[in-house]
Order: sequence, then C-alpha cells, then structure tokens
Amino acid sequence: MADDPGADARRTAPRRIYSGKGLSLDVDEVVEPGDVRATREVVRHTGSAAVLAVDAQDRVLLVRQYRYAVGEALWELPAGRIDPGETPEDGARRELEEEAGIRAERLERLAFFYTTPGFCDERMSVFRATELTEVPARPEKDERIERRWFAAHEVDAMVDAGEVREGKTLVALLKERLFRQTTR
Amino acid sequence: MADDPGADARRTAPRRIYSGKGLSLDVDEVVEPGDVRATREVVRHTGSAAVLAVDAQDRVLLVRQYRYAVGEALWELPAGRIDPGETPEDGARRELEEEAGIRAERLERLAFFYTTPGFCDERMSVFRATELTEVPARPEKDERIERRWFAAHEVDAMVDAGEVREGKTLVALLKERLFRQTTR
Repeated sequence: MADDPGADARRTAPRRIYSGKGLSLDVDEVVEPGDVRATREVVRHTGSAAVLAVDAQDRVLLVRQYRYAVGEALWELPAGRIDPGETPEDGARRELEEEAGIRAERLERLAFFYTTPGFCDERMSVFRATELTEVPARPEKDERIERRWFAAHEVDAMVDAGEVREGKTLVALLKERLFRQTTR
Repeated sequence: MADDPGADARRTAPRRIYSGKGLSLDVDEVVEPGDVRATREVVRHTGSAAVLAVDAQDRVLLVRQYRYAVGEALWELPAGRIDPGETPEDGARRELEEEAGIRAERLERLAFFYTTPGFCDERMSVFRATELTEVPARPEKDERIERRWFAAHEVDAMVDAGEVREGKTLVALLKERLFRQTTR
C-alpha cells in the first residue's frame, strides 16, 4: 500500500560514492512510501555493540579516547564495530576484552537503537555485563584508551552536569539509573 | 603536550570525498594526541536540534516518518538539521513548528551529545518545550509526517518494550522519566 509508512522504498538510481574501511556512502534516488520522491544521502555502517560493565560494588566502567571526528576526548562505554559474521553479543564481548581488559560471564540486552537514522543505518546494540574478571587488554594500533571505574553517584553527577557527551553512553547510564531507582 | 588526550590532532593529508546537501565525507590522514597515526573517515554534518514537547497533561509529542537509511518508519522527537547562522534553540523552535505545528513559549536545554563520534561530527542539542500552542505545520516536500501525543505511561511502556529505536528520542524520554520520578 503506497501510504503505509511501514512499506519499503524503491531505489530508482543508486550511486555508491565511497567504499571504505569503516563505512560507505551512497547517494540514492528513491521513491518512498506515500510516493515521496527524494535524493537520500546514506552512510552505510556494519553496526556497533557497546557494553555497560557493572561490578559487584555497582561501579561502571568507562573508557576515554580521543575522537578525531569531534576533536576531543570523550568518556564512553567500551564499544566498537561488529565484525562480519559476528553477533552483536559476540562483538560486545570482544570489544570489552580488547578495549577494557574485562571478560564478562553474564551479558543482558540493555538497549537497541539507530544512532542517527536520518542519514545513517548504524544499529547500536547495548549490553549490561556483570560477573566480570580482568584479562589483558588488546587495543588496536590506532587506539589509546584510558579506563576508569566510576561509582554510581559519580556517573549520575557527570550526566547531570552534561559531562557525558555521547549518545550510547547517555542511553545506558540513564537506563541503569532508572533501574537502580526502581529496584533499590 | 603529545600525550594529553584533550590536545588537538594534526591533519597531514585531508581529502574531501563528497560534498552534499546534508553531509560531507572526508578521509583524513592524521596524527592524533599520543602520536597516533591513523586514517580517519569522517562524516561532516552541520548539527541537529530536537524537541521534547510536553503539554499541560504531561503528554509528549512524537512524530513518525519513514527513514530511508534504515528502511522503516520510526517514532522520534521532532528534529532536524540546524541551518547556517541558526542557533540550536532557533533550529529546535523552527523544526517543532514545521514538522509538528507546535509553537513553544518556553524552551529549556535537556541534553547535548554527539550521536556517533567514532566517524561523525554531528552535534545533537535536545530541548524540552512547554507552554505550547498549535500553529499550521509546514513539512518539507520530501517529508510525510504523522504526529501523536503520548501519555507518560505510554511512552514509558514503549521504551521498556524496545519500541523507541532512535538515539535522541531514547535519551530525551529517559531523562524526562527520571525527572518525573524525582519531582512527583
């Protein structure tokens, strides 16, 4: 049905502008549900997984690294691109070990969302990890990562002060805070 | 200082791959703080503003539109790109009028974050709007927008069921819920 917004779009003229290591860029001529003709610029991404690791004292682990795209270092959840053939959960476990040197016995789904669906197909799966043990971290060659455990009241204060400035991390910390408030 | 993660990166070989209507794509050879040499793919964006409109009955306004990048229709906050020369607050007011047909007397800053800073510089400013009046909506030619007011318990249930699948909207609804729980 043409007016069903859940229906699919038709691509009349796809154009691949760039095919890279981490992303690709398409500029497509499309006819969307409701007979909307438009040119859509779309960043294609393989998807990401992130982990909110919570230890026995209710502390959470954040990592800080320089983000070239925004020109500053940010505190974020350990996270990364999902590799081909990997499930979001496998990717989350791998990134938690590589970036933060933490192995998790238990992983639960915390959130799923699109980071910026107006122009990008990135899917973000966020997990809550518990029953943690330390393992050697294995950062990639172009990663310099600082890690730190934060008490619940510390991250709450950071969120309230606007010091957590990244989407997935805000979603996870807000969900965790609601969970703490309703269960304790 | 080379190891200060707050320091700036040096771009040794910038390359503009694409310059478009809504975004541009750069592939830069860089030297980041800590002497990290890397190739960074960066989507350049002018920034976005979004609005959580809350009426006198504590209902919130969401809009639903087809998102070509992800191939589905999503419930989201009214939002859009900030125009050149516009402040985030001006952009938020304009998008709320254009997309949703709502004028807000009062606007407060609710959140600021980067949507996906690993490869994109998009800055997202989210405002909370109150003291609302209806005005004629003026959607763009390629926009088909459905709007609906949701009671607080309805959006809470949608968030818990994973039915809110977009970053800025999740951040805003979680913040609003915390606000409700701590003030009432």
